[in-house]
Amino acid sequence: MLLERTLAAITPADPGTLAAALDRQSHLTKPPGSLGLLEDISVQLAGLAASCPPPLPEPAAVAVFAADHGVHAQGVSVWPQEVTAQMVANFLVSGAAVNALAAQAAADVVVVDVGVATPVTVPDAAPGRLIRRPVRSGTADMTSAPAMTRQEAVRALETGIAVAAELVGEGHRCLLTGDMGIANTTASAALIAVFTGADPDEVTGHGAGVDENTRQHKANVVRGALELHRPDPGDPVGAVAAVGGLEHAAIAGFVLGAAAHRVPVILDGVIASSAALVAAALAPDALAACVAGHRSVEPGHTVALRHLGLHPLVDLGLRLGEGSGALLALPLVQAAVRTLRDMATFDSAGVAGKEA
Amino acid sequence: MLLERTLAAITPADPGTLAAALDRQSHLTKPPGSLGLLEDISVQLAGLAASCPPPLPEPAAVAVFAADHGVHAQGVSVWPQEVTAQMVANFLVSGAAVNALAAQAAADVVVVDVGVATPVTVPDAAPGRLIRRPVRSGTADMTSAPAMTRQEAVRALETGIAVAAELVGEGHRCLLTGDMGIANTTASAALIAVFTGADPDEVTGHGAGVDENTRQHKANVVRGALELHRPDPGDPVGAVAAVGGLEHAAIAGFVLGAAAHRVPVILDGVIASSAALVAAALAPDALAACVAGHRSVEPGHTVALRHLGLHPLVDLGLRLGEGSGALLALPLVQAAVRTLRDMATFDSAGVAGKEA
Repeated sequence: MLLERTLAAITPADPGTLAAALDRQSHLTKPPGSLGLLEDISVQLAGLAASCPPPLPEPAAVAVFAADHGVHAQGVSVWPQEVTAQMVANFLVSGAAVNALAAQAAADVVVVDVGVATPVTVPDAAPGRLIRRPVRSGTADMTSAPAMTRQEAVRALETGIAVAAELVGEGHRCLLTGDMGIANTTASAALIAVFTGADPDEVTGHGAGVDENTRQHKANVVRGALELHRPDPGDPVGAVAAVGGLEHAAIAGFVLGAAAHRVPVILDGVIASSAALVAAALAPDALAACVAGHRSVEPGHTVALRHLGLHPLVDLGLRLGEGSGALLALPLVQAAVRTLRDMATFDSAGVAGKEA
Repeated sequence: MLLERTLAAITPADPGTLAAALDRQSHLTKPPGSLGLLEDISVQLAGLAASCPPPLPEPAAVAVFAADHGVHAQGVSVWPQEVTAQMVANFLVSGAAVNALAAQAAADVVVVDVGVATPVTVPDAAPGRLIRRPVRSGTADMTSAPAMTRQEAVRALETGIAVAAELVGEGHRCLLTGDMGIANTTASAALIAVFTGADPDEVTGHGAGVDENTRQHKANVVRGALELHRPDPGDPVGAVAAVGGLEHAAIAGFVLGAAAHRVPVILDGVIASSAALVAAALAPDALAACVAGHRSVEPGHTVALRHLGLHPLVDLGLRLGEGSGALLALPLVQAAVRTLRDMATFDSAGVAGKEA
């Protein structure tokens, strides 16, 4: 099966290349360590590619996985569910933030319908690219039933793997996660609570704009779903089936697919990081491919990043999703590789070192 | 005189355009406020340009102002003074971090010698652009004499103004500050102490790699210079002449020049922010043009940014200078403008708003 084959293909970063990249960083014409997190990223990507310097992570593509959530019926969002489909249409006509930010970063945008509940109307002559792979028409309400079956979770995971393979096959050398799904921060909070052990109240935020009363209600909805299903973090497929979302499962697969192809994947926000928890539980070495694009204002995002050991590149108070934070980080990741690849060394440039 | 004419040309952001940009942000297809600091930047740049949306801040150019420091004789750096000239040569052959990062961000690089002490040897067929405008051959040692005369400080300020005018005249629509000068974090700490009232120990950091003992010595050097000259923050030219650097004065002028042309200027690190304190003391409205590119690990940088009321776009543990942090922020500033300019509104996209 595709999932098993993919998991088997994921191996650690190459230790020899990691050491070579660290050594090269120490000889470049700058005080050692003075490029901070960029140095770490450049070394990570060298280890991933088993090549120092690593290839420039371009061209890049962001895949926006869209789906709906049965838990929307519990009043966890201020936005009507049909906004998911309406925003998919908006992506296809380049009207959304993801389009503006992708244009800036020279990244391609693909939208993947893995389970939007409302029929998606593609506007005439829309320039955007839509991949229709619906697993089911939105999830079930996790407060009364598993969000999806195990089989559906595996299909969503394998959809993500397949999309990653397709994009890499087209020549993309950097993948970015994106997401769209009204109520999807509720599923994210549930997954983060499962995999980190945090209390639902600690990891449930205001999402796309609920007030504090609704946020508390949302945390209670998460708590109730966890008490009903008692998801086991040692069974990641079961956990994402019980309280996750179709886009969460697909993004987890997308991360696994990138890692199997040894292509870096820039994670967007709280939805991506909760999906990365699923991926890392299935294959810990997948983290060698992961870069945290940003830190959002959702409290669960910080908890998930800490658990994953990832340090976000930007922290701009974003809470949008769509891939926005990953796209903002893309030029920083590319810059990290360029410094390792293009800078002179003290010897080659004839620059004196520190005085003894 | 050029300085007086420039100060007179600096006026506040346009209030009507600021209001129009805020209103437009609230109608774009995203939860209001969900683009965080990018929304603030987009509104600021609209107000600066008196145009909503504002022009895309490109093409961009980073000006790396290079100079030496007499206070180097006090043992405040682990690097020999000739590294300033050697790094200028490295910039001209594209071997430095600023070159790699400028290539990523599609920014032009100009190096401005405002007072390098060691003769700069331009390598044969070097592709880089060097503007030679030395005001003097490095500053005097601030622990025994003013770093420069008032007349020299004004010449350095006017050099920065002239370089900004030259770059804007060539069509650049975004200016970035860069700097090179062994020991220049010492002068920065002195300026930050003068303009914020902070204790020298609080704003003196490890610079390009001194140990803690040397850092304490460096703070004492700064304290001694301040006790000798007693610089008055109400006399910014006198303050930068007493304890600043030639590149600090030039960058202050560069900021003023950008503001006078209503072109955004992205500040790099602690040297730029200490120079911006000089610029803001001369013309508070110059801050309408300023964007803080990043937050460095130098403690004085955070103190200066707080005093200026600026919020840095990236925070990656950098401590390099050259314009590195400003260049990393450039695509984020461009992205901010693109969202305001290119995103659809809820009405135009047919996307439903929040439920009542």
